[in-house]
Amino acid sequence: MENKYHFACQLIREAGQFIKGRMTSDLDIEEKSGFGDLVTNMDRETQDFLIAGIKARYPDDAILAEENGVTHDIKDGRVWVLDPIDGTVNFIVLQDDFCIMMAYLEDGVGQFGLIYQVMADKLYSGGGQFAVVCNKEPLPVYQERQLAQSLFACNSRMYAQNTGGVRQLLDQCLGIRMYGGAGISMSKVLSGQLLGYFSRIQVWDYMAAKIMGEGLGYCLLTLDGQEPDFKTRQQVMFIPKAKLTEVLSYLKGVTI
Amino acid sequence: MENKYHFACQLIREAGQFIKGRMTSDLDIEEKSGFGDLVTNMDRETQDFLIAGIKARYPDDAILAEENGVTHDIKDGRVWVLDPIDGTVNFIVLQDDFCIMMAYLEDGVGQFGLIYQVMADKLYSGGGQFAVVCNKEPLPVYQERQLAQSLFACNSRMYAQNTGGVRQLLDQCLGIRMYGGAGISMSKVLSGQLLGYFSRIQVWDYMAAKIMGEGLGYCLLTLDGQEPDFKTRQQVMFIPKAKLTEVLSYLKGVTI
Repeated sequence: MENKYHFACQLIREAGQFIKGRMTSDLDIEEKSGFGDLVTNMDRETQDFLIAGIKARYPDDAILAEENGVTHDIKDGRVWVLDPIDGTVNFIVLQDDFCIMMAYLEDGVGQFGLIYQVMADKLYSGGGQFAVVCNKEPLPVYQERQLAQSLFACNSRMYAQNTGGVRQLLDQCLGIRMYGGAGISMSKVLSGQLLGYFSRIQVWDYMAAKIMGEGLGYCLLTLDGQEPDFKTRQQVMFIPKAKLTEVLSYLKGVTI
Repeated sequence: MENKYHFACQLIREAGQFIKGRMTSDLDIEEKSGFGDLVTNMDRETQDFLIAGIKARYPDDAILAEENGVTHDIKDGRVWVLDPIDGTVNFIVLQDDFCIMMAYLEDGVGQFGLIYQVMADKLYSGGGQFAVVCNKEPLPVYQERQLAQSLFACNSRMYAQNTGGVRQLLDQCLGIRMYGGAGISMSKVLSGQLLGYFSRIQVWDYMAAKIMGEGLGYCLLTLDGQEPDFKTRQQVMFIPKAKLTEVLSYLKGVTI
């Protein structure tokens, strides 16, 4: 497993170089399912780059990925979960604050996860048997903090519409941040900068953070505190396990 | 004026070093006027550092600054406008995404402005007779872009309460970002990453960006398109001048 982990750390950095080297080329931009859900040729090419790397080394492993309908049951055997560019709008408009994400599971058990902030060159990695680190610096296990002294990141639509009662919770906090991507936001939870994150996302958006977070005291759950289905886009939260009861007390009882 | 500008560029970087060198020391945190408006000993010490530097070189210049009630009529003579730490909550909680801001005016006319993103080591400077640059790289003059392809940053309370009708405008855009500071947000407008920014802020929060923005096609106005009063906390927007009519068409006619 250690070889596989180091292979993944190297591959994700190479994919970052691949993207950076092509950032001057013109992008073909296409809408996937509507407003804010854009995909570029770079997403697809980066995914192909990752898949080619994995298949060359581990030809029998399965892959579940964001683009082109590459799918596999996440609980069946050795599975890589890939998001080639998380935060595509940030990639297109800001040319910053986007991430590559990878997760690896065996029979549904997370072995490691990786979130690479490409432009900042920050690689968050670990989980399972591996220490969770950012560029080899260990990340802190969650220590109790009060809502009133903490920041949360939240999807703008969920905040605007008070989906699941998130505003009741967020109104207790010191402030809200919106960074426009799951990877950038959840890596700020893992580093202890944000207390938590709310969004409506897919398995490739959250699996890497979920695996890393488990080693540091965080959980990735639906807004009613259940395990997500790992199959559909769902409203989820990434918060400290020790805060689950308190968070649910603000969310529950609210008509969505 | 060129000497004064280079002096300011050097002083603001020294103030950044001053902050970084003390970021391990314990912070005394105090509420100024309520939730989210915190001040630390570091804000005050950094302001003292800036004022001492200015007074040593330009003893007759006046100063208007955020902390300790250091005030002066902005239209009267040679005036420095200082915000020692913009984004104090980010400074305390994230230890990132905060800025030092300086602006210099003579008889009410902006001569230059500076926004220094301390942790990213990015200095936005210029305006008046000086080219607007980030770390010496020229920043682009605004080029026409559509709302639907653009991101805006917005104060969370104004977004939640649809202050001034900002949501009617923001719903036309590709997305919303919240970075928790005027300096970090407005520097992303100056770099062309964001199309605009809405917040409720004071003169020291916006003067540097206003002076720099004028050279690149941006304007800093109240939500009804007027010049701010430069004296009180006001709801303002920092947008391309060429977009003013379009922006106002979404904002106006709305009961606040």
